[in-house]
Amino acid sequence: MPLYRVTLAYDGTDFLGWQLQRRGGRTVQGVVEEALSRLAGGERVAAFGAGRTDAGVHALGQVASFDLPREVEAGGLRRALNGLLPEDVRVLDAAPAPPGFHARKSAVSKLYRYELDCGGVQLPQRRRFAAFVPRPLDEGAVGAVAALYVGRHDFASLASSGGSAKTTVRTVRRSEAAFTGPNLVYETEADGFLRKMVRSMVGGLVAAGRAAVPVGELARAFEARDRRAWPAPAPARGLTLVRVLYPPAMLG
Amino acid sequence: MPLYRVTLAYDGTDFLGWQLQRRGGRTVQGVVEEALSRLAGGERVAAFGAGRTDAGVHALGQVASFDLPREVEAGGLRRALNGLLPEDVRVLDAAPAPPGFHARKSAVSKLYRYELDCGGVQLPQRRRFAAFVPRPLDEGAVGAVAALYVGRHDFASLASSGGSAKTTVRTVRRSEAAFTGPNLVYETEADGFLRKMVRSMVGGLVAAGRAAVPVGELARAFEARDRRAWPAPAPARGLTLVRVLYPPAMLG
Repeated sequence: MPLYRVTLAYDGTDFLGWQLQRRGGRTVQGVVEEALSRLAGGERVAAFGAGRTDAGVHALGQVASFDLPREVEAGGLRRALNGLLPEDVRVLDAAPAPPGFHARKSAVSKLYRYELDCGGVQLPQRRRFAAFVPRPLDEGAVGAVAALYVGRHDFASLASSGGSAKTTVRTVRRSEAAFTGPNLVYETEADGFLRKMVRSMVGGLVAAGRAAVPVGELARAFEARDRRAWPAPAPARGLTLVRVLYPPAMLG
Repeated sequence: MPLYRVTLAYDGTDFLGWQLQRRGGRTVQGVVEEALSRLAGGERVAAFGAGRTDAGVHALGQVASFDLPREVEAGGLRRALNGLLPEDVRVLDAAPAPPGFHARKSAVSKLYRYELDCGGVQLPQRRRFAAFVPRPLDEGAVGAVAALYVGRHDFASLASSGGSAKTTVRTVRRSEAAFTGPNLVYETEADGFLRKMVRSMVGGLVAAGRAAVPVGELARAFEARDRRAWPAPAPARGLTLVRVLYPPAMLG
């Protein structure tokens, strides 16, 4: 059966996350598979997403792969899916995928962005896509914690209890905090992320940035590999899956 | 009674516009007056807005003025109102106003911004605050129509039938179309705008930009002062009231 990949953008506000829920509820995978099944004349189509984004988390570049019963022209696939999908999910790109491509298993890294508005009043225009803290953060402390994450580390302190990963070791290639006025944009790229790991990374930045926890103490909690020692994860609404990277051979 | 002004930002998506509706429904004026009345211990408080934004139109710098039965500290007023208002309206700033200040009558000009995403697929993250056309616009034609509006003109061609203005002559100080990739950001400042005038200005830009109407024909329709000759107004969701300007004496 012909294999395809699509790049998806979504506003995660009104979804219970990417993954189908056993108890039902609106998920991105659910609406995508429903659109694909309609395209396939009612046949069930399974879509695999690169990142299992949680409830309320957004995407600018989620990737999904799926088999279709018949070959379709890629431009027509994008248009047809956008005609069937709800307006909070859009297919940005559709293409045939090389044999063996799997959106999650073939990925070599993912880039997430977290936006946090700090101080004053948050503009209502920003409330779906940025979290908010009422006081400005200490930029030096935020930068120091962001630097802790870079490299190959055991991220057990930052792993949510619900995760199913075999190992909690990950390699973070990028961890950069940039401020525009008081507002923080944090970007991180790694070979993979544990469940709620990015939000826990941001929880650490915020705890240090508002001086609730000294940087040295966070560094020790990070080493301790004990999630009870780590600050709470930051809210989902600030988080966006920006890009998923594949080896050139997998881009067909 | 002490007089105040507040600067408001709102996401207009879920409002029937600024102004109270005779037949009810959710309006920005309605939720602001309700919050003010609660602050005033139940007494009715009337709020005057600088711009009567239509249903679906947003604001980053709407200004409203009102009398309160008692003096309050401005910082406390901002915090108290934000505690009472729904999350799609925020008070950015609150201050005592000089005697005679009226948010609409004292204003000398207003700046509106219109965002239009052009070509390809619109990101779901943009759908509340930018309109969308599926094809890129001709930038030269858009710029030529934007230039038509600058100066003192009779804007009768661009006035909605429902307006109550005594004259349709307005002075446009600024009318600038800027493109970021295919996407248009249009800004216009004038001493006042007729009902749906900015959206009609953008309707003209889009008609010329997609080559539906030649620029010369639009120029003649503009001169003709006949709204039946003018393209339809652009959708509300792309429009934002950015700033209202007052004489220095009125800023207290």
